[in-house]
Amino acid sequence: MERIYLDHSATTRVHPEVREAMLPFLGEVFGNPSSIHWFGQEARQAVEGAREKVAGLVGARPEEIVFTSGGTESDNWALFGPAEAESQSHRPDGKRNHLVTSQIEHHAILHPAEILEKRGYQVTYLGVDRFGIVDPEALAETLTSRTFLVSIMMANNEVGTIQPVAEIAEKLRGKNIVLHTDAVQAMGKIPVDLRKLPVDLLSISAHKFYGPKGIGLLFIRKGTKMPHLIHGGSQELNLRSGTENVAGIVGLAKALEISARDFEANSLRLRRLQKRLEEGLKQKIEDISFNGHPEKRIPGLTNVSFSYIEGEAILLNLDLRGIAASSGSACTSRSFDPSHVLKAMGVSPELARGSIRFSLGRENTEEEVDLVLEALPGIIQKLREMSPIYPGKKK
Amino acid sequence: MERIYLDHSATTRVHPEVREAMLPFLGEVFGNPSSIHWFGQEARQAVEGAREKVAGLVGARPEEIVFTSGGTESDNWALFGPAEAESQSHRPDGKRNHLVTSQIEHHAILHPAEILEKRGYQVTYLGVDRFGIVDPEALAETLTSRTFLVSIMMANNEVGTIQPVAEIAEKLRGKNIVLHTDAVQAMGKIPVDLRKLPVDLLSISAHKFYGPKGIGLLFIRKGTKMPHLIHGGSQELNLRSGTENVAGIVGLAKALEISARDFEANSLRLRRLQKRLEEGLKQKIEDISFNGHPEKRIPGLTNVSFSYIEGEAILLNLDLRGIAASSGSACTSRSFDPSHVLKAMGVSPELARGSIRFSLGRENTEEEVDLVLEALPGIIQKLREMSPIYPGKKK
Repeated sequence: MERIYLDHSATTRVHPEVREAMLPFLGEVFGNPSSIHWFGQEARQAVEGAREKVAGLVGARPEEIVFTSGGTESDNWALFGPAEAESQSHRPDGKRNHLVTSQIEHHAILHPAEILEKRGYQVTYLGVDRFGIVDPEALAETLTSRTFLVSIMMANNEVGTIQPVAEIAEKLRGKNIVLHTDAVQAMGKIPVDLRKLPVDLLSISAHKFYGPKGIGLLFIRKGTKMPHLIHGGSQELNLRSGTENVAGIVGLAKALEISARDFEANSLRLRRLQKRLEEGLKQKIEDISFNGHPEKRIPGLTNVSFSYIEGEAILLNLDLRGIAASSGSACTSRSFDPSHVLKAMGVSPELARGSIRFSLGRENTEEEVDLVLEALPGIIQKLREMSPIYPGKKK
Repeated sequence: MERIYLDHSATTRVHPEVREAMLPFLGEVFGNPSSIHWFGQEARQAVEGAREKVAGLVGARPEEIVFTSGGTESDNWALFGPAEAESQSHRPDGKRNHLVTSQIEHHAILHPAEILEKRGYQVTYLGVDRFGIVDPEALAETLTSRTFLVSIMMANNEVGTIQPVAEIAEKLRGKNIVLHTDAVQAMGKIPVDLRKLPVDLLSISAHKFYGPKGIGLLFIRKGTKMPHLIHGGSQELNLRSGTENVAGIVGLAKALEISARDFEANSLRLRRLQKRLEEGLKQKIEDISFNGHPEKRIPGLTNVSFSYIEGEAILLNLDLRGIAASSGSACTSRSFDPSHVLKAMGVSPELARGSIRFSLGRENTEEEVDLVLEALPGIIQKLREMSPIYPGKKK
């Protein structure tokens, strides 16, 4: 069976050029970058070369780029680090213990936030509008003299909505509050230039843009106090201990390079495919609604709700036809709770349960989109016929 | 220049069979193991297959194996996890806040221990004898009703001394104290059978036994309460969040399989090479002393002190001749402090500074050892001639 992969927000296939770039580091070039001998220095050069390349591509300084084991570690660090720094500080005004995030963040942010709550921190979980957008004005109103951190994602992983991070940064100007943005879903899909975007911390994961799994980074703007999350040796600018994943780091840098190089062409292509998919769905299936902002959305991500039926059943039927999509975040795919993102956007639990995320990627074709548009109407109709709440049911 | 790598305790070259096993997961097989569709399930099978393989090789159950980003994360988790579990517990006897470790642990253990001290925990750092061995009797005497954790490494990374972990476990029997052992240096070099060795937690890093960098695991014996270190999605048996490093996990399992398969042959070979190296050094260079236990030592690791000179200078001169060795841990190679391990063993700071670690590996040959034995005496003599404290100096 020819298979169609439409779940690029969950993960992507390593780009052949990325794999090619990584191979020497799974063979000949194997030194420990911390070793002072030739083998070590060869590996060190690869790591520092990757760091410089990444820094150049995102508008950062090399010493502001710290490699981690992935987006989740980066996100955890972005919350626990500033909290730890705050608890170590001796401010005349006493300990600051308030952080602001949103209800639609990834669990890699929400769970650490909940842990900080248990430890006595106060957390504001901002709501969003029906498109999934955080209101910078509303955010500004929650800030107090005790607020030390704001963490708002750059683009949502379930509905693709792009957040007004620059406007949020504007609201924080001069306030001595650390601003983190989870750019795991945004990187490679919308431009990220840290010379213009005044965030202090930014998380990236390589496997979301055709790099390998198990490697990510945290951008830490110079001057931001960040205690370790992982402690031990003095690797990664003495900020993240553990022998560097050299092959992964090289792969991440290469993937970012390619994503910048192919950015315009890919964006155009993804938008065209996405339009074809969405127009087709609208034409062929009734009682559907699209989730996320109509324009402020990362290219290629379509989240659609099908009334009267369960997303899970749609996915299983698609999978039997060789089509891979998802019901939202892969990280919680074994959960039967409706999406916390759609809930925050005001989508009813019933409709949220009937939602599917298609996320297109660089290898998808118009033919594949057409195959989905051929297969899906029948699946939806079949499931609706089986649904006790479908009003159009044949007697 | 033909180069000779004698720093296998720092890291190893990925075994060609390991690389071969990893390649599909840097290409065709790319799903997110958390995705419920075919692509995800294909990746899930690879991860679970690797978990079962690893479990079988170390005598654990699959559900006791949790993959991490490496030895450092595993070690951090092994300390912070039980501490966190303790702080969440509601024991009638109040909070237990005492842990025991040794002065010769890796910094991935010592730094977390120091952080726990800052948070109010009491830490006993056990000394060692002149061979680098922790005394189980002395350890038993430090235990109190408030002790919740003991962490003693299986084999030391700088001198190779093997610790009496089984005897330590015996001392803890029935005491409701979690026992962790850092097996990062031991794995692949001495047999590890968790059916016989009653530790609760055990750390492994793949790149120390010809697997890839950036992947490790923590064995967590069933019944051991371990809160998350990295929080987010429900990956890794809901214990370690973050999309799984599938290629790394497959590589770790393959590397462990190979190390078990070739165990006898490699051990014999390494011991023979090590003997050749040590006998040669004794014959050819005077005023040297070997560090670590003469027998209870992992095969292939030789730590030797050269009086009157600096290890750093020896390493640089060896490196110029194409020979890679180290002055102890790669993770602290940029530090000029003498080794904390040799210090704990009672080696004087002067002698500790003149110490070198040779760690042999599967690709080393007798010819390579002989080349080192040819090069080293001249280097040592030259450096000693330059040393103001060398008594044999020519006038």
